[in-house]
Amino acid sequence: MKKIEHIGIAVSDLEAANKTYAAVMGKSHYKTEEVQSEQVITSFFEIGESKVELLAATSNDSALAKSILKRGEGLHHIAFAVDNIEAEIERLQSEGFRLLNDQPKKGADNKLIAFMHPKEANGVLIELCQEIQ
Amino acid sequence: MKKIEHIGIAVSDLEAANKTYAAVMGKSHYKTEEVQSEQVITSFFEIGESKVELLAATSNDSALAKSILKRGEGLHHIAFAVDNIEAEIERLQSEGFRLLNDQPKKGADNKLIAFMHPKEANGVLIELCQEIQ
Repeated sequence: MKKIEHIGIAVSDLEAANKTYAAVMGKSHYKTEEVQSEQVITSFFEIGESKVELLAATSNDSALAKSILKRGEGLHHIAFAVDNIEAEIERLQSEGFRLLNDQPKKGADNKLIAFMHPKEANGVLIELCQEIQ
Repeated sequence: MKKIEHIGIAVSDLEAANKTYAAVMGKSHYKTEEVQSEQVITSFFEIGESKVELLAATSNDSALAKSILKRGEGLHHIAFAVDNIEAEIERLQSEGFRLLNDQPKKGADNKLIAFMHPKEANGVLIELCQEIQ
């Protein structure tokens, strides 16, 4: 784990949240990206070596929409940057952790990603991210 | 806002969580610190320019114990490093945000801290941190 790649925040209304977080962080988001496989639309704010990622659902059937319905808006996941996501998945599995996907998949922001099961990480949804070269 | 100073994770059992996160992050926490005013005990893991802070309650009356009872363990707050916390509080108030404390107070890890009201930040508890020189 090299750094916090981003913090994901679940929001109901991306446009309104972009304004809120621009005011909080003192600068605007620098891009918006839809991830169709996850049925989410995301926006990114730079902060130091990390990012804040706002996520809104594009369908009521998405996992994100269900999560917001159940738990409300708020902190959703933490993503750590890794050099070799497959090696990191193997290392975590050998430590006894379960991955929600044991093969990395394409995520937002040109990344290969995999999520760990939150149950074994004190309720925290942890994402691993490897930049696609 | 200069960088993500840390991510705070609420846990029930700090000793067990220290072992879990050492396995997740591939390294041990580097310090433990009790904040008596908040009735919490914290431990810190380095990650790039940021930290992961685990927080456990030292009293059932603490805000943290009540939060865990209500929402369970998990992501608790995000802390941004600032150069001048008083100026940042003024800027945020002028943008219409409410602070939970409008005067900075002493927090863990040699910091002056202030929290923003989560209601106006999409349910996210945001902490401002300034290093005490």
